[in-house]
Amino acid sequence: MDNVVTYLNTAKGDRFIDSMRKKKFAFALAISHTETSQIPGITAAGAVPEMIKFTPPADAEFLHYGRCLSIDQIPMTPDGKPTPALLTKTALESASIPHIIINAGCMVAPKLPYIATGLPYAKNIYKEAAAVHQDIVHAVDFGRIVGRTLASLTDCLVIGESMPGGTTTALAVLRGLRYDAQVSSSMSQNPTDLKDTVVSHAMSRLDDNEPFSVVSNMGDLLIPFIAGMLCTASDVSRVLLAGGTQMAAVLAFAKTLGYRSDSVAIGTTSYVIEDKSANFLDLIKQIDDIPVIGVDPGLSESRIDGLAAFSRGFIKEGAGAGGSLISAILKTGIDPGDLLRNIEDQYDRIFT
Amino acid sequence: MDNVVTYLNTAKGDRFIDSMRKKKFAFALAISHTETSQIPGITAAGAVPEMIKFTPPADAEFLHYGRCLSIDQIPMTPDGKPTPALLTKTALESASIPHIIINAGCMVAPKLPYIATGLPYAKNIYKEAAAVHQDIVHAVDFGRIVGRTLASLTDCLVIGESMPGGTTTALAVLRGLRYDAQVSSSMSQNPTDLKDTVVSHAMSRLDDNEPFSVVSNMGDLLIPFIAGMLCTASDVSRVLLAGGTQMAAVLAFAKTLGYRSDSVAIGTTSYVIEDKSANFLDLIKQIDDIPVIGVDPGLSESRIDGLAAFSRGFIKEGAGAGGSLISAILKTGIDPGDLLRNIEDQYDRIFT
Repeated sequence: MDNVVTYLNTAKGDRFIDSMRKKKFAFALAISHTETSQIPGITAAGAVPEMIKFTPPADAEFLHYGRCLSIDQIPMTPDGKPTPALLTKTALESASIPHIIINAGCMVAPKLPYIATGLPYAKNIYKEAAAVHQDIVHAVDFGRIVGRTLASLTDCLVIGESMPGGTTTALAVLRGLRYDAQVSSSMSQNPTDLKDTVVSHAMSRLDDNEPFSVVSNMGDLLIPFIAGMLCTASDVSRVLLAGGTQMAAVLAFAKTLGYRSDSVAIGTTSYVIEDKSANFLDLIKQIDDIPVIGVDPGLSESRIDGLAAFSRGFIKEGAGAGGSLISAILKTGIDPGDLLRNIEDQYDRIFT
Repeated sequence: MDNVVTYLNTAKGDRFIDSMRKKKFAFALAISHTETSQIPGITAAGAVPEMIKFTPPADAEFLHYGRCLSIDQIPMTPDGKPTPALLTKTALESASIPHIIINAGCMVAPKLPYIATGLPYAKNIYKEAAAVHQDIVHAVDFGRIVGRTLASLTDCLVIGESMPGGTTTALAVLRGLRYDAQVSSSMSQNPTDLKDTVVSHAMSRLDDNEPFSVVSNMGDLLIPFIAGMLCTASDVSRVLLAGGTQMAAVLAFAKTLGYRSDSVAIGTTSYVIEDKSANFLDLIKQIDDIPVIGVDPGLSESRIDGLAAFSRGFIKEGAGAGGSLISAILKTGIDPGDLLRNIEDQYDRIFT
């Protein structure tokens, strides 16, 4: 267990961990699309730009089938580093944690059963508002329904996301809500100047910092949807927000809606927490008194270079990888070394 | 508890009941459409023929919101008898049983989050095959995925359905699979001659009794989807098939696919079991050694005529009403008289 560490309110974090040992977990992956991901250089979540819109459905398919149907290979960066969904799938399988996919505004629907929401995908916030106000209301309302339903079926609802470009819209929402934010990236060289430019453009459309107006002008559909889920789910079960930067934006928006903070923790990888180009822990502390649980996936020890790269600042997190690993460890007490070997086996299975 | 009675293998039925007391239940409502419902006189599930396609999404919306969004009123028969979803909603609410909607081939999608399957709606089997072979395979495959996921989140998965015209396609599938079947109807005067004519027409297209060929030629998308759910769910949890005639067809088709019969029971209303125009218990006995659990909703005692009509052979069952009542009673031990009063209160809330 020494690879699972609590940060910020560690007493609260340790209580969360203790209360979840051997309990039931369910993993929900919310997938979505924003045209902001089409800005050249903003994301590494796709081998070529035309493939970016397939990454969320392909992550969902990989999680379920162990292979993708919408594209030929699993999602990867232009230089061949695999999607973090590889970690997620291994963790969920290792601990028999059931998962369900939620389509919260994809451009391309996944080829498997999923929870449909009728949400559109978000526009490019560099050029225009992400969505109309009514779509944000819809996202929150439907998020509330889905969150209540799923939480009532488990002890701990783990919520992950897959949406290329999501750290940029998250940065915009955080700044729009007046937080002092620096965010992580799927790239090892975080394109912070480009992100700042995009956010400044989006910010210039903003008349006030009314939360729905911020999300509508500068955000996406994923943030309000997961925020809605969090509001109701935290009333019914524990909720582990599985992610880095995007979950900070979810938390910031959800705080304006109201949720039960005693039931909530953020679970992410040590690679996000240690990211010097971002201020993750400081950011969460600004937002609310929520513990952060970090897991070291141990990939620096991996014999596979595409996985070891995660520990050198590439990818870092995504598709709920960190939260899934934490859940697997809490549910089953699996040895981190065994988990790493399962991850490597999964990698070998895919690439050989 | 004397309004919950087991039939057929009563020892097995009583064991099922005992093992489910105070346990966790989840209710899945699969909704679908068949153009067979457009045959004049075949169904009472819609105030006028043009409204029939709205009945499944409206049932789903009523279950969730307590009112319908796709139509102005709750679904009812031409002479104003309400949808059995009224019983379902009351039962689920009374026992805090979570529910989830599955769109297994609707013409009109419900206005709430639902599990999407990408299935088309079925054609009119009087005129043509219900669906192509590949759609039936798809329905079974996606049913398997959904069944495994939902069953892994609960102790007992209760599966209900809403699809006007469903007793006719169920009759066709049962006869196509060579069972000696008479089925119930939502009308008090069961249009058995009309159903027989429709089924004979459909049967004339059949070259053999290969199960997928039978369902493709004479069935719908709901039967193979729920059959797929049953196959995987029965491996993971208990499954209560909540319905009458349609669930007999599901069972018959699922038997050709394979399922764990020790985990399965059928739950329905006493009105289906006592229906003289059908041979429900005899039919189930022909198919497999599965217990039937019947509940008397006690509506003959109701002060409200639209509800008392259920006990006089109108409506009888639907939207998983019987199975939901059984689940509520097993989960909470609620007094049947209290449940009846809750049903009447629900009726009053809607119509005043």
